[in-house]
Amino acid sequence: VSDVTNQNVNEALLNEVLASFDDSRNSRLVEILRSAVKHLHAFVEETNLTRDEWMTGIDFLTDTGKKSINSRQEFILLSDTLGVSMLVELVNQKSTVNATDPTVLGPFYIPDSPMMEMNSFIGSDDEGADPLTVTGIVQSTNGDLLGDAIIEVWQVAPNGLYDVQDVDVDAPNYRARFQTCSDGRFSIRTSKPIDYQIPTDGPVGTMLTETGRSSWRPAHIHFRVSCPGHKTLVTHVFDASSRYLESDAVFGVMDSLKLEMSGDEASFDFVLDEE
Amino acid sequence: VSDVTNQNVNEALLNEVLASFDDSRNSRLVEILRSAVKHLHAFVEETNLTRDEWMTGIDFLTDTGKKSINSRQEFILLSDTLGVSMLVELVNQKSTVNATDPTVLGPFYIPDSPMMEMNSFIGSDDEGADPLTVTGIVQSTNGDLLGDAIIEVWQVAPNGLYDVQDVDVDAPNYRARFQTCSDGRFSIRTSKPIDYQIPTDGPVGTMLTETGRSSWRPAHIHFRVSCPGHKTLVTHVFDASSRYLESDAVFGVMDSLKLEMSGDEASFDFVLDEE
Repeated sequence: VSDVTNQNVNEALLNEVLASFDDSRNSRLVEILRSAVKHLHAFVEETNLTRDEWMTGIDFLTDTGKKSINSRQEFILLSDTLGVSMLVELVNQKSTVNATDPTVLGPFYIPDSPMMEMNSFIGSDDEGADPLTVTGIVQSTNGDLLGDAIIEVWQVAPNGLYDVQDVDVDAPNYRARFQTCSDGRFSIRTSKPIDYQIPTDGPVGTMLTETGRSSWRPAHIHFRVSCPGHKTLVTHVFDASSRYLESDAVFGVMDSLKLEMSGDEASFDFVLDEE
Repeated sequence: VSDVTNQNVNEALLNEVLASFDDSRNSRLVEILRSAVKHLHAFVEETNLTRDEWMTGIDFLTDTGKKSINSRQEFILLSDTLGVSMLVELVNQKSTVNATDPTVLGPFYIPDSPMMEMNSFIGSDDEGADPLTVTGIVQSTNGDLLGDAIIEVWQVAPNGLYDVQDVDVDAPNYRARFQTCSDGRFSIRTSKPIDYQIPTDGPVGTMLTETGRSSWRPAHIHFRVSCPGHKTLVTHVFDASSRYLESDAVFGVMDSLKLEMSGDEASFDFVLDEE
């Protein structure tokens, strides 16, 4: 009987919280908050969360916020490592069969990276890394070649760090923007990407260690491809030979995004959904 | 067909994330994380969360972390205003019928407040507020009088601020600890509590404003009562005459915690569950 009573009290509380949003005029915000509240309450009930565990969670989230700076977004890293970022990309993907698959943005994207001439080298230093030229076409799902697409590209430097992580680097490095040629073609010179570990010196790193999870990501190059009239594509191209393809710390790998990079040139076409 | 396919892809992702915790030796942590992951994914799917909304959420959580300092815990305030803190108290409450009902800890609790002699005045200044003496007994659910219970008490000052919020106050004020007398009795002198608004200058305040919610709390005194061999009780006693009893911003009111405070003395007994 007392279990039933407790259940009723919990349900009354949930309904009270949901009803507190009744006077809002922002219906989408309320839809999102109500869903969040429903799932938060279900989580607490399902886990029988203790006060100490609740406080540990409060501290964890607080530390995650405090660890975030412009060039290092720990909450994005948390979302990435729980598969939430990947799911957001999946639910925002249109169902057009031949469009390029999306994957996570990651914590190291920066808007307004330097605009470069086609075929430029995007690193300031190759540190003896293997050179790689990535060429391809940006096109629409209906086959149109997109000559006014913007390709943003960023990747880890040969030393295993993104420019924003590297205290010795104070300008964009292995990070650039290109506009496609009138026939939709592009050619980008870079260094072959390498496997690397996501940052483990924050709360997310602690979570991975505590749960015996790997912090490695398979080698990849990030792309964000946008074009008027089309959905912006956020994706990576993965080195098909990486040993970490099956255990990506942020669950970003899709078969269609694997690319043979053993030579010094590799080709990959981007196909954008129409808006 | 493509909806079914997307559903399968989403489910495969969820299973991959859940399986990533397989190697952990901390089974309780993994139980909690798996439940969190399941509900986070269901939330994203249910709301069809857009990338911009996801980023707004990331920024909101980051700001909530950054706004938190020792004396002002914005993540607790968020948990409070979504009814999560109250639910944690409810699920941790034992089902003994006659134990005192719990309610939220709130963001202003501080451990190790000053120990005072029985019948001391807990404020440094009453600023012309109405005096109130709270007396009562601490006892066990089996009727034992608890002479070694510690009562921690804290409340808003007559100016509408907790000591830790008030830049002009640098010592504990309206915040103290008492040990019960050998017969379980206590007597605490304070000022009558007043209705007040939770802090609205942070992300939680923005959330309340955007959704048309009230930031008022009905007048109350916080108590945390602990005794060896017993479950620690976290609760408030509410002024039964407050106009905000039905619209508490943090959903903490329970009928059993309302107390007539119109005179200068009020009596309330605390009944603790055995451990």
